[in-house]
Amino acid sequence: MSRPLTIAVAQSGAVQKDDPRQANVARLCKMMSDAADQGADIVVFTEIALTTFFPRYYAEDRAEMDQWFEREMPNAATQPLFDLARERGVGFYLGYGELTPEGRHFNTSILVDKEARIVGKYRKVHLPGHDEFDPDRAFQHLEKRYFEPGDLGFPVWDTMGGTMGMCICNDRRWPETFRVMGLKGVELVMLGYNTPSANSQNDGETAEMRKFHNRLTLQAGAYQNSTFVAAAAKAGTEDGHHMFGESCIVAPTGEIIAMAKTEDDELVIAEIDLDDTAFGKATVFDFARHRRIEHYGIISTQTGVTKPSVK
Amino acid sequence: MSRPLTIAVAQSGAVQKDDPRQANVARLCKMMSDAADQGADIVVFTEIALTTFFPRYYAEDRAEMDQWFEREMPNAATQPLFDLARERGVGFYLGYGELTPEGRHFNTSILVDKEARIVGKYRKVHLPGHDEFDPDRAFQHLEKRYFEPGDLGFPVWDTMGGTMGMCICNDRRWPETFRVMGLKGVELVMLGYNTPSANSQNDGETAEMRKFHNRLTLQAGAYQNSTFVAAAAKAGTEDGHHMFGESCIVAPTGEIIAMAKTEDDELVIAEIDLDDTAFGKATVFDFARHRRIEHYGIISTQTGVTKPSVK
Repeated sequence: MSRPLTIAVAQSGAVQKDDPRQANVARLCKMMSDAADQGADIVVFTEIALTTFFPRYYAEDRAEMDQWFEREMPNAATQPLFDLARERGVGFYLGYGELTPEGRHFNTSILVDKEARIVGKYRKVHLPGHDEFDPDRAFQHLEKRYFEPGDLGFPVWDTMGGTMGMCICNDRRWPETFRVMGLKGVELVMLGYNTPSANSQNDGETAEMRKFHNRLTLQAGAYQNSTFVAAAAKAGTEDGHHMFGESCIVAPTGEIIAMAKTEDDELVIAEIDLDDTAFGKATVFDFARHRRIEHYGIISTQTGVTKPSVK
Repeated sequence: MSRPLTIAVAQSGAVQKDDPRQANVARLCKMMSDAADQGADIVVFTEIALTTFFPRYYAEDRAEMDQWFEREMPNAATQPLFDLARERGVGFYLGYGELTPEGRHFNTSILVDKEARIVGKYRKVHLPGHDEFDPDRAFQHLEKRYFEPGDLGFPVWDTMGGTMGMCICNDRRWPETFRVMGLKGVELVMLGYNTPSANSQNDGETAEMRKFHNRLTLQAGAYQNSTFVAAAAKAGTEDGHHMFGESCIVAPTGEIIAMAKTEDDELVIAEIDLDDTAFGKATVFDFARHRRIEHYGIISTQTGVTKPSVK
């Protein structure tokens, strides 16, 4: 163990529409405090961690949804998290709806160091769902209505002893997410998610299948870039909508080394060694030796499917 | 079932150094015949299907290895496969070492239709291993010595009722492989592999771990591009070197729908519906709606890792 790091993934149970931010932050502070008691260096909270997962609600007037966004960070509601982080000497990842001074809306996460400084910001690139009310869906998923796609790319940050990256929820299904960070040497990717247990467009898709897709994409992203991944769910039933848990920590081998057992507020803790990322990066995934970018062009030049003329 | 296709993955058991090509082709013909009896439309053979997996042997003079390559296709040894394919009306994927008239060497696969016409050729892009004798390895893996990286990219072909793609062995570990074909609308990716059960650079890595990586990459590639994948192993022990089996057929959901039970010559058969690729391509992996190429640039412009200046 030459670069040990104790990660605590802080899964959140359901947050209801009327739960005040202060009460929710108190729950997050409780988990941060418990994590610090267990030696955590960093706590990974979930996506949209401060409120219910509001993109399930349709508002014709988008401005009605501004109540779910944070206009500054920290703010009065979240200051206790920053104070506790500084006091206990733990960093954290936190997801929230960001409303900028210019009136732009993003699904955002921040990386906060052990001195409670915001050292990194990420804005969700891959927004799932749709932007207009869709009567054909069993429920709405209006992320494309309420957020702009992230405009910051996939940065990484050298902090807390390693090279850290962030993404959010649906980003994990896209190998490009992990690869861009992998090409920057990422060693730990943190993410939060709110993933419904049902597919709004396919009532035959089971919750087990959706959990499998969660694990599959996290494990593949970890293995194919030889990085740790720490993923925090918002779980349980919000306003009748169930979200699965399975918050987990994945090793650079793709193995799941710790996973949540409940759908409530729960800490998932692992002591890792960031140097365990080195073997894969030096051998099977030594990108400099093995990648063949001359054949990858359309990945970054072509958005949708184009059927080629080759027969 | 609107576009049914019966796939037979033809796993090969070990092929020893002294086994003549004719004897081996007779084994492949036996599997093709059995597959046709079971209604197969297409048979997927493995990588380097005609000989032992020769890149484990070091030759200072590379020309000594030309004995393992095919100078034309079909040739006298492989003509029976083509004859049988035409007679029984089955297509096939076949991997072999290709020596071109210009003296170039590739790790190649071909796609042959039900009239026994070669309709597609692929040359392995991601060559694993090394190009000089490496005394630090438990055994040699000299693909980078004996082959050039493929120069044909990742084409797809509209044949046998669907959009077909090919890759070979180590290509499956690279999400770029599947994504380039996914961007061309691939519905079935065929591949063969010869994967040692031991890691020549890490004797602590178990065969179970390596099987897990095989499944993980095939399943992720299938799910993330909503395509079927049919993967054929060369399995068993060649000259003291064990290769795992687990030849399998993966659905566009990422689920394994059929898997080999042995490490011998074995058919793995599934009747699929190519239209099952449509749902994923139209929803969560509707690339045109969800991909954000403005953030993917370095995937196709930067080969190795570059630590960014961002702190």
